Amino acid sequence: MSQHRIYVGPVADPAIVTEIQKHPVSLVEHPSDADWIVWLAPNPADLAAILHEDVQWVQLKVAGIDAWVASGVMRPDIVWSSARGAYARPVAEHALALLLASARRLHDSIGTGTWGEPGSRFGRVFRGSTVSIIGAGAIGDALIELLAPFDVTVLAVTRSGRDVPGAAASYPTDAMDAAWEQADYVVLAAPGTPETKHMANARTLGLMRSDAWLVNVGRGSLVDDAALADALDAGTIGGAALDVTDPEPLPDGHRLWSTPNTIITPHTANPPEANSVDLAERVGANIARMLSGEPLLGFVRPGDTY
Amino acid sequence: MSQHRIYVGPVADPAIVTEIQKHPVSLVEHPSDADWIVWLAPNPADLAAILHEDVQWVQLKVAGIDAWVASGVMRPDIVWSSARGAYARPVAEHALALLLASARRLHDSIGTGTWGEPGSRFGRVFRGSTVSIIGAGAIGDALIELLAPFDVTVLAVTRSGRDVPGAAASYPTDAMDAAWEQADYVVLAAPGTPETKHMANARTLGLMRSDAWLVNVGRGSLVDDAALADALDAGTIGGAALDVTDPEPLPDGHRLWSTPNTIITPHTANPPEANSVDLAERVGANIARMLSGEPLLGFVRPGDTY
Repeated sequence: MSQHRIYVGPVADPAIVTEIQKHPVSLVEHPSDADWIVWLAPNPADLAAILHEDVQWVQLKVAGIDAWVASGVMRPDIVWSSARGAYARPVAEHALALLLASARRLHDSIGTGTWGEPGSRFGRVFRGSTVSIIGAGAIGDALIELLAPFDVTVLAVTRSGRDVPGAAASYPTDAMDAAWEQADYVVLAAPGTPETKHMANARTLGLMRSDAWLVNVGRGSLVDDAALADALDAGTIGGAALDVTDPEPLPDGHRLWSTPNTIITPHTANPPEANSVDLAERVGANIARMLSGEPLLGFVRPGDTY
Repeated sequence: MSQHRIYVGPVADPAIVTEIQKHPVSLVEHPSDADWIVWLAPNPADLAAILHEDVQWVQLKVAGIDAWVASGVMRPDIVWSSARGAYARPVAEHALALLLASARRLHDSIGTGTWGEPGSRFGRVFRGSTVSIIGAGAIGDALIELLAPFDVTVLAVTRSGRDVPGAAASYPTDAMDAAWEQADYVVLAAPGTPETKHMANARTLGLMRSDAWLVNVGRGSLVDDAALADALDAGTIGGAALDVTDPEPLPDGHRLWSTPNTIITPHTANPPEANSVDLAERVGANIARMLSGEPLLGFVRPGDTY
């Protein structure tokens, strides 16, 4: 049996090339020679131009494929896999950075250029809090690991309501109110799909405690931004720390730039330096799975919603 | 044997009163009736006025006693104990908040009011870093616990160089250069004493990597602030996150308010809400130790330097 021919593009990454060379596959220089493609660009446009009849598998660099499904590039006769879950650790780390920044009110100190009144800038201790993770998949697992030393109570919400290891209680999305009501921090880590759109809305935000923070490291579309801005302005929730917004970039002058107790990072949860290492690991694992016929990590059926 | 008479002042804290009532001692309303005193004010002035001949033991609320030693209030015929180590967990939590804020460059995002150029605000992954803890006592132990899931390499520096559990290597302060050289993050957690003054100075800051951050949750006096400001302005270190400064409050217009890559929180590592719970636990433990003749936690000999 001749070896599979794999193309890495549009620009090959050394860490990924090194990983591929550990496997019994041929690395080819032109996409037209390839039956497998590892595609490192963040958007669908250029991939459509190089797909051809012999392509059997495409491994994407992205974890969230909402834009790819919408673009129509994901031909159903090709096997697709995303990097979903591959970047879970850096994203979970960013979520913890935002959780601790919220707890310790770093937004009240950073950039103010003055010490302030004694005592006016104390935050609260994060240890012992209740943290609800909505959309508890790979990021949730990685976050639960980081939270372990803090003695927090984790409430996990998934579509199915399956028991999430490390969570004190697990809920399905259609019966998740307790997770919103009891949390000191609600972390959104769900993918962006029609089902998850605006899961943080006037109703669910209204369930939150008045000192609870919303942290979003999933997708901007998970949050009804007008309802969030209303809640922040009215002080019915404690604050919001957002790494993702809708749209992105969040335009200058958007309401969320001036709501109180709001921390926004510009979709930086997954620093590029970390990408190639984490993605190389995923590419290697999936080559091995393709060769042995095992199910792919991040396997995508374009007809499904993700 | 008659019971010991304990006074809590200048204002009694309910959590501490509740804790004291668990022990076979009498709570008295006037300091003149007491032989034991729990003193909850943060500075020495008012205590001097109520100390009398029969006082045998004073438990202080503060963890750092440099100002108390200097004030002369600590009569050598009285047994003194500080809260040293009692607040280690909240302070370690603040240290981790600053470490993650540094890694994820939250100072580049918070308060800017605009998304910025794509990619210009990425930080780096904290996982896998090398973290040196200078003055690795109770705060260091608590920080090492929080760092456990991050696969960091901890280098510990103590006066004696004793093996610190959880550290990959331990150094004495007089041979600590490797800890400054190898660190991605140097965390200062030492007490403020003549020995530790300006341990972060032009020489030690000069040992640091150009992308390494200094985090100070110990005492402002540990840092030569002019040398630090020089290093930040010259970019010879990555940045500094300071919860303590010298002096405090750091005056408006001080150089460190405008040096690049500088995060300053106004001595808020130990939120007051946490104090009374942590201190009550310490008071209870020390009452039990006084009654049984065991060594006190946070025992202070005023003649020593701390």
